[in-house]
Order: sequence, then structure tokens, then C-alpha cells
Amino acid sequence: MAGYVSDAVIRRLPGYYRHLKELEREGVMQISSQGLGERMCLTASQIRQDINCFGGFGRQGYGYAVPELRERIGQILGVDQPHKMIILGAGNIGHAVACADSFPANGFETVAIFDSAPDKIGTRVDALTVQDISSLERYILENPVDIAVLAVPVEAAQTLTDQLYQYGIRGFWNFAPCDLKLEVDAAVVNVHLDEGLQVLSFRMLHKQD
Amino acid sequence: MAGYVSDAVIRRLPGYYRHLKELEREGVMQISSQGLGERMCLTASQIRQDINCFGGFGRQGYGYAVPELRERIGQILGVDQPHKMIILGAGNIGHAVACADSFPANGFETVAIFDSAPDKIGTRVDALTVQDISSLERYILENPVDIAVLAVPVEAAQTLTDQLYQYGIRGFWNFAPCDLKLEVDAAVVNVHLDEGLQVLSFRMLHKQD
Repeated sequence: MAGYVSDAVIRRLPGYYRHLKELEREGVMQISSQGLGERMCLTASQIRQDINCFGGFGRQGYGYAVPELRERIGQILGVDQPHKMIILGAGNIGHAVACADSFPANGFETVAIFDSAPDKIGTRVDALTVQDISSLERYILENPVDIAVLAVPVEAAQTLTDQLYQYGIRGFWNFAPCDLKLEVDAAVVNVHLDEGLQVLSFRMLHKQD
Repeated sequence: MAGYVSDAVIRRLPGYYRHLKELEREGVMQISSQGLGERMCLTASQIRQDINCFGGFGRQGYGYAVPELRERIGQILGVDQPHKMIILGAGNIGHAVACADSFPANGFETVAIFDSAPDKIGTRVDALTVQDISSLERYILENPVDIAVLAVPVEAAQTLTDQLYQYGIRGFWNFAPCDLKLEVDAAVVNVHLDEGLQVLSFRMLHKQD
């Protein structure tokens, strides 16, 4: 990939990946920037700009080869490699993440779930048994883990993140309503559900565009 | 609010709201763009630009009055008004949304939950009983509802959205992994969890910042 890619383009990448997978399933092997744009509610010029950001694939007048572009975007996203996740917090969010079929289907496998509450430790969540958070360090030492899913209260999130970083975790999927302070070699994506609802409220009120 | 506000600014608004609420709780009544920027990991100039977008509040050399700014941003977001939500789909996501404390604490109250599966209809989710989706239209006619939470499979999402729109719903919080086609007077926020994980994978692989 060539140079700096804006956050807006990065956030559109999974959408490209999803639409290209759908096109492949539909048997469409070739698509123009116009056709892809109509499907994704973007302009053809936006599509060309985006795809140029990560190397360019189209041939003038021929459009894009769907399987190649899908494969390349998968590589850029890193989803051609499997990821192992542990979930911190066996509450409603932890349950929802552990039980979702779509994450393992996309190569994100939950391998363990932890909690500190005695009434949760030892209970089953889907195919997993909730482990005592005191065994977290040993677990990570003994098992490969890429991503920690933070489904804990906001008070616990930063301390736990610091510990997980010390244990070697570099990927954080954070559902706690706070901004984590991270070392530069760690990556985070926040899922601030409350804030999404507030943005929806804004859009309902203002109806711009 | 003055004119068009970019999507990036809109998505930052809830973060402002959250930090200003925290500041108020800490007893901080006045804050400079510098101070707010340090707290939010934005530059002072970014803060001033953002706040100018929605009307400007600071006085040169005095900074911002925290309670007034928090109140004004709350009004702009529309979270000074309560919202009533119904959940479509009593699976893991539907459960997680119904059981979360933070949504009602922010004025987003779940008033009903619906499913089409006979083994789910009549079961309890938190304080609610899962209703048959065939009673959806009558429920909406008889009760005020602002927001529909779509926690249904992707195959059902668009049809259900069209129905809900006909019944008068204009706000959609969509957890299904698809882009909904909506009329211009409807608003949507997507929570594409799979895509968030893919963005995390990208960031872990590329570590740009």
C-alpha cells in the first residue's frame, strides 16, 4: 500500500470487501467504477480515488476484476490471516460477541472469555467456560492471542488494557465508553454504542443532505 | 446550528458531550481549547474549529463555560429530549441492547422487543416480554416510538425497514451487516461490528497514525 491512507478510506474498506464478496457470490467477475459506485452509493470518481489509494487495479475501459480486487482488499485489511480473540467481561456484550456466528466466519475466533465475578466464573457462554480473570496472564503466556475484546465497565477498562499490553496484546476492540490511552504499537477500535445512538438522534433532528 | 456540518464533526460531537459531562462531574466550570484538546487528544485549533461549526461559544482568553457548552451540545445532538426505542430481534444483540443500563440513562428507553420465532415470543428480556412481530403495526399505532433497533438477520433487514417506515418510524439503528435503502426523511446509524473488527485488523497490520 502506498503511503498514508485517510481514516475515511480505511473505514470504507470493509464495505468494499463486503460488496465484492457479494458480487463474487452473484457470479459477477468484472465491474466498472460506475457499477460499484451505484451499488455502494458512492460516485464513480470516489471509487476510483479510493482504489487508487491502495494501489490501483482497474484497466481503463475494463473496470475491476472482482475476485482479484476482493482478494487484494482482504490482504490489505489483514483478514486473509486468522485472528484469535479473548473476551474480557461475560456480561451482555461479552455474550453477544462470543455467540455471534459472523466473527469466526470472517476469521475472528473467540478462544476464551474471562470475568472477575464469582457468579460468572465457571458458567458457559456458547462453547466456552468463563475463566477467572486472575488466570489471564498465564492463559496469554500459554496461548496465542491477537485481540482483546473489552466488554468491561469503564472503571476497569484502562487498567485492564495496560495489563493486557504488558502481557503482549496489541489489538483492542473496546466496548467501554471511554478513550483508552495506548502505546504507539497498539491498535484500537472503539465501539461506543451510546455515541452511535446520539449520532442517530442528531441525524433525526437535523436531516441534513 | 449554522449550515452544513461534516460527518467527521458530527461523529466527534458525542465525545465532546461525554468529556464535558465528565468535567462537570469533576467540578470544572471553565476550560480552554488547549485543555479540552489535551483531554480529547485533539489539537486546540481542531477544538476551536469544531466548536465554531456549531455556533461558537468561547470568549478569547476565557475558554469555554463547561455547563453551557455541554447543554448546547446536548441540544444539538437532540439528547435533551427522550427517545423511545423498539428492538426487532430477540437474539444476542437484541438482548444486549435491551439489558444495557447506559441507553436509558442517556434518555433512550427500550419500550418493546419483537421476534418472529415461536420459541422466543413470550420469553422475558430484562423487564420486557418478547412480542410477536405480527403485532408490530398495531403496537406502533398505539404507542409512540422514535427508533427501531434492527437486530435481525441481513435477509430480513430491508423488508422490515420498509414496513417500519410505512408505520411511521424515521430512526433506524441497524446492526444487520448491510446498507439499508432509506427515504430521505429517515435517518440511520449502522453498527457493522464485523467491519469494525476488520478495521482493527487493518490497524494492527499497518500501524499508521
